Amino acid sequence: MRGLLIGRFQPFHLGHRYLIEQIDEAVDEVVIGIGSAGQSHTRENPFTAGERVHLVQDALEELDAKTYLIPIADIERNAMWVTHIETLCPEFDVVYSNNPFVERLFEEAGYEVRGTPLHERDRYCGSEIRRRMVAGDRWRPLVPDPVAAAVDDIGGVARLQKITDDDT
Amino acid sequence: MRGLLIGRFQPFHLGHRYLIEQIDEAVDEVVIGIGSAGQSHTRENPFTAGERVHLVQDALEELDAKTYLIPIADIERNAMWVTHIETLCPEFDVVYSNNPFVERLFEEAGYEVRGTPLHERDRYCGSEIRRRMVAGDRWRPLVPDPVAAAVDDIGGVARLQKITDDDT
Amino acid sequence: MRGLLIGRFQPFHLGHRYLIEQIDEAVDEVVIGIGSAGQSHTRENPFTAGERVHLVQDALEELDAKTYLIPIADIERNAMWVTHIETLCPEFDVVYSNNPFVERLFEEAGYEVRGTPLHERDRYCGSEIRRRMVAGDRWRPLVPDPVAAAVDDIGGVARLQKITDDDT
Amino acid sequence: MRGLLIGRFQPFHLGHRYLIEQIDEAVDEVVIGIGSAGQSHTRENPFTAGERVHLVQDALEELDAKTYLIPIADIERNAMWVTHIETLCPEFDVVYSNNPFVERLFEEAGYEVRGTPLHERDRYCGSEIRRRMVAGDRWRPLVPDPVAAAVDDIGGVARLQKITDDDT
Amino acid sequence: MRGLLIGRFQPFHLGHRYLIEQIDEAVDEVVIGIGSAGQSHTRENPFTAGERVHLVQDALEELDAKTYLIPIADIERNAMWVTHIETLCPEFDVVYSNNPFVERLFEEAGYEVRGTPLHERDRYCGSEIRRRMVAGDRWRPLVPDPVAAAVDDIGGVARLQKITDDDT
Amino acid sequence: MRGLLIGRFQPFHLGHRYLIEQIDEAVDEVVIGIGSAGQSHTRENPFTAGERVHLVQDALEELDAKTYLIPIADIERNAMWVTHIETLCPEFDVVYSNNPFVERLFEEAGYEVRGTPLHERDRYCGSEIRRRMVAGDRWRPLVPDPVAAAVDDIGGVARLQKITDDDT
Repeated sequence: MRGLLIGRFQPFHLGHRYLIEQIDEAVDEVVIGIGSAGQSHTRENPFTAGERVHLVQDALEELDAKTYLIPIADIERNAMWVTHIETLCPEFDVVYSNNPFVERLFEEAGYEVRGTPLHERDRYCGSEIRRRMVAGDRWRPLVPDPVAAAVDDIGGVARLQKITDDDT
Repeated sequence: MRGLLIGRFQPFHLGHRYLIEQIDEAVDEVVIGIGSAGQSHTRENPFTAGERVHLVQDALEELDAKTYLIPIADIERNAMWVTHIETLCPEFDVVYSNNPFVERLFEEAGYEVRGTPLHERDRYCGSEIRRRMVAGDRWRPLVPDPVAAAVDDIGGVARLQKITDDDT
Repeated sequence: MRGLLIGRFQPFHLGHRYLIEQIDEAVDEVVIGIGSAGQSHTRENPFTAGERVHLVQDALEELDAKTYLIPIADIERNAMWVTHIETLCPEFDVVYSNNPFVERLFEEAGYEVRGTPLHERDRYCGSEIRRRMVAGDRWRPLVPDPVAAAVDDIGGVARLQKITDDDT
Repeated sequence: MRGLLIGRFQPFHLGHRYLIEQIDEAVDEVVIGIGSAGQSHTRENPFTAGERVHLVQDALEELDAKTYLIPIADIERNAMWVTHIETLCPEFDVVYSNNPFVERLFEEAGYEVRGTPLHERDRYCGSEIRRRMVAGDRWRPLVPDPVAAAVDDIGGVARLQKITDDDT
Repeated sequence: MRGLLIGRFQPFHLGHRYLIEQIDEAVDEVVIGIGSAGQSHTRENPFTAGERVHLVQDALEELDAKTYLIPIADIERNAMWVTHIETLCPEFDVVYSNNPFVERLFEEAGYEVRGTPLHERDRYCGSEIRRRMVAGDRWRPLVPDPVAAAVDDIGGVARLQKITDDDT
Repeated sequence: MRGLLIGRFQPFHLGHRYLIEQIDEAVDEVVIGIGSAGQSHTRENPFTAGERVHLVQDALEELDAKTYLIPIADIERNAMWVTHIETLCPEFDVVYSNNPFVERLFEEAGYEVRGTPLHERDRYCGSEIRRRMVAGDRWRPLVPDPVAAAVDDIGGVARLQKITDDDT
C-alpha cells in the first residue's frame, strides 16, 4: 500500500520527518509530493524545487521508509489538481492531509484521506522557521541536520532576509 | 440582434433569470458567457464550468429566449479579453454589463454596452447565496427550482462548507 | 442518461447530424464537445469555436434532442484530457467515439465507450468538404442548410481558399 | 558596456528620464525592459505594452543615449526570470535596480547590480501620477511632454478613472 | 502614418534592409515585429529574440527610418494573433506582408495589407543564408556588415552547425 | 560530484541501467531527469511521468548509485531549458549526453558535457522496444525484470497497441 503526502517543505523540518515516520508505519511506501514546485524566491516559498529535493532527500536517507520524491507544480484549475498529481506520481492508495481543501478534492476523486498526526505544530511549522530565519533567531534545532547544512550551502537565510526586505 | 451577458453564475439565481428575461425582450438571441470557467472549489467559485452549464441550462429551459451558453476561461491579458470572447462566442451586437471594467474593455473595442436592469440586488446576489449556504441559512428561495435540485445533486453545500472551513 | 460526442465540426455536416440523431435515440441528452476549440484559420481547422457554435447550434435546432454544446480547447497532457472534459461538461455516462486514442483514454478513466454509427463516411467527412470548398466543388449538399448559410455569412470559403494558398 | 533597467513605466515620468540620463553616463548603451508587459487596464497597470513602447520611445528620442526598448512579460517562476530577460534582451553587463528582490535574483545569476540614483522620489513616482490622474489633479508636469501628449491620444486618464471606479 | 512589418529575421539580411527602406518611403514610422520570439536553437530559428534585437538594431541604425523593434512571441490561437500584436506594438495603420495567412488575419481585423517589394528573393532569404552557414558557404555578403559581426560574436554559425548535426 | 542524465525512459531498459552504472563510477550521485514528463498515451511516449517514476525507481533499487529521480516537463523556449532543469534538480556538475542539441544548450550555459557510453544501441533502444511491444515480439529480455512487471501492471502493451492502431 502506498500513501501520498503533499507539502511545500519550505523548509523540510522535524515535524515533517516525524510525520513521514508515522505514515511509513501504516503503509509500505510513501509518495512525497513537493508542492508549489515552480515557486521560489518569495517569503512564503524561498527555495526552488531543486533545492527542496536536495533538502528533503538528504533528510529522508536517515529514515527506513521507501519514498518517492516528486515535484508538483501548481495548476490553475483546482478541479484538475488530483489528476495532475496522479499523472506525475506512482499510483497511491491513501492520502494524508489535514487541509480541508485537499481533503475535499481527493474525496471527490474517491480517495481515502487520513488526518496527519501533528507533532508540536507551533514549533515545527514552516512559517515559524522562516520567521526565525528572517529575524536571526535560532531555527536550526527545528530541522534535521542535513537540512540545516543544505540551507547554509544555498545561502538560504541571506536570500530570505533579502527578499523579506523587499516586502517592506 | 444578439446580446452578450457574462456572469460567473456561482450559482445561477433568480436575479440572473430576471435579467435574461429583460435582455431577451430587447434582442433576438442571448449569448451567455460563463466566466472564470476554469475556477472551482473556492469560496468565490465553488462550482466547475460543467456544473454551472448544467445549472444554467436547466434554468434556461423555463424561458422562451434563444440562448447560447459558452464557458469562458479567464486569461491573464486584459487587453485580449474581448477578442478571447469573440473567438469563443457567436457574433454579438450589444453587451449587457454594469461592471465599469467590462464596459471599458468592450467600449474600447467598439461595442455598445448597456446597463443591466437589477432586481433586488442585495438578495439576488451570488455572494449572499454562498454566504447562506455556508451558514446553513435558507438559500433555495433565491434560485430557480432546477438550480436548487442541481446543487443538491452535486453536494454543493457540503463542498462549499468544507472549503470555507479551509479559509479559516 | 447522458452521452458525450466530441468532434471538431470543421464544418458540421449531415454525417454529424445523422450521428446525433442516432445517439439521441439511445440516451436522454447529448453533450456535444467542440474539440480543438482554440484552433482556427488553418486548413484543418478553418473556423473559430464561436463560428462553430453558431453553425452547430443552428443545425441542432432542427433536431428533437436535448443537447449541450461545449467548446473544448486542446490541452498538451493527454493523461489529463478526460478530466479536462469532465470539468467543462455536465456529467455524462457514456462516450461515443470510433477513435482508438479517445476510446483508450475514456476506458482507462472507467467510461463505457460505444462505436458511432457512420453514414456514408467518404462523403460526409470534414476533410472532403474542406477539399471541395478549396477546389470550388459542390459542398453545400453535404451540410445542413443552416450550416451552408452560416459558412456564407462568415465568408468561410474565401478564408479557406486564402489559407490554403498559403500552404503551397 | 551595456546596462539594464527594468520598469513598468505606468507611465514613463521625469524620474525615469533622469535615471536613464544618469545610467547613460556610466554605460555605452541602455537596455530598457518594459516590465509586466502583458498587464493593462488595471489601476496599477493602466497601459498596454504597445502604449508604453509608444510613450517611452517618444520620450527617449529627446535623449542622446543609445537605447533598446524591450517588452518583458511576467513569468510565474521567479527562478527563471533572469534567464527570461536574457533571452529577450541584447546581452548586458550591469543591472540598475533598487529593488531587493530584483537585486537578489540578478546577483544569484552573477550580475553586478547597482543602486539607481533617485530624483525627488515622492513626486516622480508612478503611483502618485496615477493617483493624480484619477483624482483629476495636475500630473502633466511630472512627465515629459511627449508622454503627456501620448496619454491624451490614448484617452488614458478616462480609462484609468473608469477602471478605478470599478475598484470601488 | 505607421506601417507594420513582421519577420523572424533568422538572420536579418539585405533583403530585409531593402524592404524596410522601401516601406520607410511610404510611411512615417515602421514597427518591426520580431516574430517567433520564443523560438531559438533550432535549424529554422537559431537565434534568440535578444540576439535578433541586437542584430536588427545594429543594422537599422544605418537607415534613416524611425523604427520600433518589438519581439512577438507565438501564440496558439490564430484568431487572437492580431490582437496579440496590437497590444504589444504602437498603433499602426497598414501592414506589409506577402503571406496569405497573415494577410487574411489582418484583413479580417480591418487592416489595409500591402504586398512587400521583394529584392532577389532567392538569394536574400533566411533559409538560404542558414543553409550556407551550415554548409560552410559564403553567407556574409547577404547580410549587412553589423549583422555578420554580431553573428560572429554569438558564435552563431557553430551553433547552427551543431544543431543541424542533431537534425540528422 | 553530481552528474545529470536526461532521458524519456519510454520505457527504462537495460541500456539505461548500464549507462547509469557507468556514470555512477565517475560521479558521486546521479540526477536522472525524466524528460517530456507531460507526454503520455502516444506511440513515442506511451507512459505517464508517474508510471515512469515507478518503472525507473524499481529498477534503480538494484543499483548501488545514489540517485535523484526528477520529472522534467517540456517547455517551449529552448533558450530557457537549462535553467528550467536547474530549478527542478539538485545542483549538478557535469551532464551526460550524446545529443548535439542537448550538448550545445548545456555548453552555452557553461557545463561540461560528456558523451555517454552506449551498450548495443540497436537492441537497447526505446523505439525498438516499443516496436516489439506493438508487433507482439519479445521485448522483456531488453528491460530489467521490475520494469517488465510494472509495464504489465499498467497494461502498457495493450495501451501502446491501441494507440498505434489510432496512428494508422
